[in-house]
Amino acid sequence: MTDSPAPLAERFVQDPASYAWTFGGYDPIRRVKPGEVLDLFVEDCFAGRIRSTADLPSKSIEFPFINPQTGPFYVEGAEPGDTLAVHLIDVRPARDWAVSAHVLFFGSLTGTRYTAGLQEALPEKVWLYRVDAAANELTFDALESDFEMRLPLEPFHGTIGVAPAAFEVRNVLVPEAFGGNMDSPDVKAGTTIYLGVNVPGALFSLGDGHYRMGEGEVCGAAVEGAMNTILTVEVIKGVYCEWPRFEDDDSIMVAGSYRPLEDAFRIAHSQLVKWISASAGLSMSDTYQLVSQIATSRIANVVDPNYTIVARAPKRFLPRDIPWMGGVHDRLRTIGRTVLATQGR
Amino acid sequence: MTDSPAPLAERFVQDPASYAWTFGGYDPIRRVKPGEVLDLFVEDCFAGRIRSTADLPSKSIEFPFINPQTGPFYVEGAEPGDTLAVHLIDVRPARDWAVSAHVLFFGSLTGTRYTAGLQEALPEKVWLYRVDAAANELTFDALESDFEMRLPLEPFHGTIGVAPAAFEVRNVLVPEAFGGNMDSPDVKAGTTIYLGVNVPGALFSLGDGHYRMGEGEVCGAAVEGAMNTILTVEVIKGVYCEWPRFEDDDSIMVAGSYRPLEDAFRIAHSQLVKWISASAGLSMSDTYQLVSQIATSRIANVVDPNYTIVARAPKRFLPRDIPWMGGVHDRLRTIGRTVLATQGR
Amino acid sequence: MTDSPAPLAERFVQDPASYAWTFGGYDPIRRVKPGEVLDLFVEDCFAGRIRSTADLPSKSIEFPFINPQTGPFYVEGAEPGDTLAVHLIDVRPARDWAVSAHVLFFGSLTGTRYTAGLQEALPEKVWLYRVDAAANELTFDALESDFEMRLPLEPFHGTIGVAPAAFEVRNVLVPEAFGGNMDSPDVKAGTTIYLGVNVPGALFSLGDGHYRMGEGEVCGAAVEGAMNTILTVEVIKGVYCEWPRFEDDDSIMVAGSYRPLEDAFRIAHSQLVKWISASAGLSMSDTYQLVSQIATSRIANVVDPNYTIVARAPKRFLPRDIPWMGGVHDRLRTIGRTVLATQGR
Amino acid sequence: MTDSPAPLAERFVQDPASYAWTFGGYDPIRRVKPGEVLDLFVEDCFAGRIRSTADLPSKSIEFPFINPQTGPFYVEGAEPGDTLAVHLIDVRPARDWAVSAHVLFFGSLTGTRYTAGLQEALPEKVWLYRVDAAANELTFDALESDFEMRLPLEPFHGTIGVAPAAFEVRNVLVPEAFGGNMDSPDVKAGTTIYLGVNVPGALFSLGDGHYRMGEGEVCGAAVEGAMNTILTVEVIKGVYCEWPRFEDDDSIMVAGSYRPLEDAFRIAHSQLVKWISASAGLSMSDTYQLVSQIATSRIANVVDPNYTIVARAPKRFLPRDIPWMGGVHDRLRTIGRTVLATQGR
Repeated sequence: MTDSPAPLAERFVQDPASYAWTFGGYDPIRRVKPGEVLDLFVEDCFAGRIRSTADLPSKSIEFPFINPQTGPFYVEGAEPGDTLAVHLIDVRPARDWAVSAHVLFFGSLTGTRYTAGLQEALPEKVWLYRVDAAANELTFDALESDFEMRLPLEPFHGTIGVAPAAFEVRNVLVPEAFGGNMDSPDVKAGTTIYLGVNVPGALFSLGDGHYRMGEGEVCGAAVEGAMNTILTVEVIKGVYCEWPRFEDDDSIMVAGSYRPLEDAFRIAHSQLVKWISASAGLSMSDTYQLVSQIATSRIANVVDPNYTIVARAPKRFLPRDIPWMGGVHDRLRTIGRTVLATQGR
Repeated sequence: MTDSPAPLAERFVQDPASYAWTFGGYDPIRRVKPGEVLDLFVEDCFAGRIRSTADLPSKSIEFPFINPQTGPFYVEGAEPGDTLAVHLIDVRPARDWAVSAHVLFFGSLTGTRYTAGLQEALPEKVWLYRVDAAANELTFDALESDFEMRLPLEPFHGTIGVAPAAFEVRNVLVPEAFGGNMDSPDVKAGTTIYLGVNVPGALFSLGDGHYRMGEGEVCGAAVEGAMNTILTVEVIKGVYCEWPRFEDDDSIMVAGSYRPLEDAFRIAHSQLVKWISASAGLSMSDTYQLVSQIATSRIANVVDPNYTIVARAPKRFLPRDIPWMGGVHDRLRTIGRTVLATQGR
Repeated sequence: MTDSPAPLAERFVQDPASYAWTFGGYDPIRRVKPGEVLDLFVEDCFAGRIRSTADLPSKSIEFPFINPQTGPFYVEGAEPGDTLAVHLIDVRPARDWAVSAHVLFFGSLTGTRYTAGLQEALPEKVWLYRVDAAANELTFDALESDFEMRLPLEPFHGTIGVAPAAFEVRNVLVPEAFGGNMDSPDVKAGTTIYLGVNVPGALFSLGDGHYRMGEGEVCGAAVEGAMNTILTVEVIKGVYCEWPRFEDDDSIMVAGSYRPLEDAFRIAHSQLVKWISASAGLSMSDTYQLVSQIATSRIANVVDPNYTIVARAPKRFLPRDIPWMGGVHDRLRTIGRTVLATQGR
Repeated sequence: MTDSPAPLAERFVQDPASYAWTFGGYDPIRRVKPGEVLDLFVEDCFAGRIRSTADLPSKSIEFPFINPQTGPFYVEGAEPGDTLAVHLIDVRPARDWAVSAHVLFFGSLTGTRYTAGLQEALPEKVWLYRVDAAANELTFDALESDFEMRLPLEPFHGTIGVAPAAFEVRNVLVPEAFGGNMDSPDVKAGTTIYLGVNVPGALFSLGDGHYRMGEGEVCGAAVEGAMNTILTVEVIKGVYCEWPRFEDDDSIMVAGSYRPLEDAFRIAHSQLVKWISASAGLSMSDTYQLVSQIATSRIANVVDPNYTIVARAPKRFLPRDIPWMGGVHDRLRTIGRTVLATQGR
């Protein structure tokens, strides 16, 4: 943190040849200081290779070269046992088009590699969406009839994470304790993401811009698009988040990612109960009861190698004046507001 | 349906000795005509027997006498293969107190009868909530510290259902295709619930008033309280809903109830896709894609014998002027507004 | 129990019009005394209506008229809180043919009603098996090439159960705490099945003869065939088995039935640990450890509304001279041997 | 393969400082030629650090330094897209003692890191087993009473795998498509394990000697002990096994590892159906039917980060004279018999 004049966002556009395809396993592309502000270009999950309804994924994409990550970034001062706070200041569509697709044997309403069976695949298809940034909308065009529908832009990052624990290196489609491909609409401008640090520098990266998505990423793909994203970071020393925590002005959240889906639910909610109990000084029983009556629970994805649920507790229903995670969110939010103000936003 | 003058709600208070403890298996307590309006007293899930923090469930309740149902009602004209529409006009707390409890080996963050293990139970406890109807709030009082918190009243029925198919009789804690103990906050005033009819008269009942609940009913109990509930019904001939559908002014919804939780998700979303595709004339692929970008997905419970997820699609993102379920909701909504107007609400 | 001369098996062939299609919900077809021996004809799961490869299930069977049960039988002296012991003395194919089928959207390698999706169904098909009783074999004939294979007869009952608890009535395809459609190959001649009694007389029934089956009933159907089955019963007063227990000369077993499959595993194994700990006087920790090193775990079905796993502990690895369930199995086994001897088996 | 005189097993004892703690991520410790025979010392899963009942895991072991792997070995000629065959010739206990333990929040009958909750942990305990190699037995000693029981030695390796696909590096407790910590009793002397090759040299390793285990590894630990293991390898060019296959003299098998447990079942059985259909020239429907009636399905573990099920089809029930995987097992078995013969076994 700094008391110096508002930091300026520094633009960083990564060479596509250096994109990361795993969490862990890459040398850092760049070092970042706590409080520094980055203005990043983030490629879409198809690496920009699906640009028409004829670009079928099976022809355009070769696994595992899907979901390129911008990063990893080495955060100075971050050591194993600390927590990295990444605050998203701005998450803006970088293009006037976006794309979605039905990928063979991927999605929640089909057999998959893991929920395996003998049935034929659903048809592989691609949809192009037109973006109207001024109206803050995009347009869905049906492929098989002349229906179209304008939908609000609600941009977020499907993927953000750090190098995993236990020397693991995980594919960029995986969400787990290190964050990753959670596909949570809460990873949006104004949110701070807390991730336990497992290796020196944390080595965080992000990708998978979503211009909009229903909950659960039902078919396996959101409205996928490249982003211009401004963020800043801080390190919380000596505190280790076991599972990803999010904070915005209104709420605190925990993301649980595993299978079956009820285990993702159990992780998210037990972590939320323990967090509140420890920070707010309520007993475990009282906290369990209170959380039961106030928490909302968002299904982030039911399609990735692990499923994700985000448990959310509104701050207004919790004991007042708790500096959640030491008050980091408020400080980073202040930086963010300054950055946006200097940009006339 | 009727073109006669607005029906008056008829008050019906069931003898507690005749409460139903299963879906199916009971003779009807009363006959109802389509368009008739009922004003019901509905007891809480603890049969009103937990009234202080000392009334521990293990002492106060003997399984299976938990979650008493008001009903069942025989709806005239309802035959197997039809669909019953129940429209909730008003769902009002009937008491100035409510209660929640941690029941032994029940809830999402403990081992249970089914997710069985060898660990000790969590502590059994009861919380009393004070209701301030004028402020539309209730108050949580911590048991083990002096913390209290006011929370908004958001009343709904955890349980509503009809007699099951295949000659089954199910305990009132179970949600499945017949509805039942879904614990969905969407079963509230202003919502129409569509349930496939399996036996003559449908034999619907309801119970389990919740003054407020977080999503998932995390600890296994909401803020439980008796309700005064006004409703009306209609029968849709020759159409059979395989799984419960809900409709309010803004959205159409499907409830899926099974385990694991991803199967509840799959049921709800595949049914929603099929419903929209059939009603709106979009292809299955286009509908699957559209639903993926617009549907929200609410976790209703992760504690009952089956878990429930409700998939919701906003009507404003669907083809216009579709008379969902034949336009029943709008007609019943009109009756409901008239009833409320005559009551000065 | 009786010290009188060996009981003679009494032949009972039920009128097909009176078959039971649920557990619970039927008046008893006949009363049985403890120690009495019944010699039953039991129809196959398709009610004998599939007799050629052209008899596709979707044309031959109308749900829920599948899996007819012989019974229910009222066992004299059985009261809620007791346990019924059913000992299978002989389970013999009643026909020289049997049948299997792939039913639409049913089976472990396809989407189903519950693991729902949008894919097309797998092909519906029927296989006829020829039975060679003398050789104790049956023959599989491939439909789409000229391959045939002789396989050993290993007859058992897929379904056996009592009326459920909590006033429930369950479809005959369901396994749960009351037994039911467990599809366990351990329900064979020489095994005693223990079922907690929920209603006066217990009201047990059985069906679903399987001439042979792989573990898990992978495609959803075994080699299905009618049976001639000899059994006897006893009542254990004041002891209630929460989940079905089995015992043969070598082993004790517990069947757990629920979803997901790991919950069936958890039920079966936690019940087995508790049973052994209570009966053998080992501590819970020691029993948990011992069971971990000696128990085998058979997957019975991964296709029914609940999945079933049977945990088995060999008696030779447990403390000696424990009269499991009061020694009922040994006594019924003696009756069984006498019956078989009088029949020259 | 070689026509040269029977290879002699070459003894290799790895420096503990070089043990591998992940699959992938390590440089090879040694190169191996196809047909070469290795005689390895393999440390137990606790790295030999638990040697008394007082050596509690929480004090003796620091995650992730659990389950050390011997290897990885670089197999000459193995390229991505090939399959590595590892044939276990001999798997012998290397010590006259072994150990098991209840680890905090690990095991199938307790809440865990993933099936998370708020309950207290089960007691942490350690059992020492005495090995009587001459009798081929080991002895369980109860901790909390004076019960002891002799059990047969049935040694196998809980863990064997190659470097994962998609640039992943996985913790040694994980089973997945690359093999790993499957905990399958079928990984024993006389079995050939087939693993798809993802990186040059395959980089296989093995560990986790189990002197005996019940199915499912119920409490989370087998009777854990160091092994002396003799094995040989071969490379099958141009054939890639998506999931681990096993073969012994009697059966072919597939291991599926994921959550929930039914997905492990689905993977194993759909892979088995596809393998047989492709190799034996039966149609998919006929194979699905045949597998349903002949396959047995062993639960390997319900405790690791992924659960494992092994589907097994006896060769005698399959079309004759199919050279499964090109007949590799028979060739390696011949090498194995020669090695054992030269050792007087």
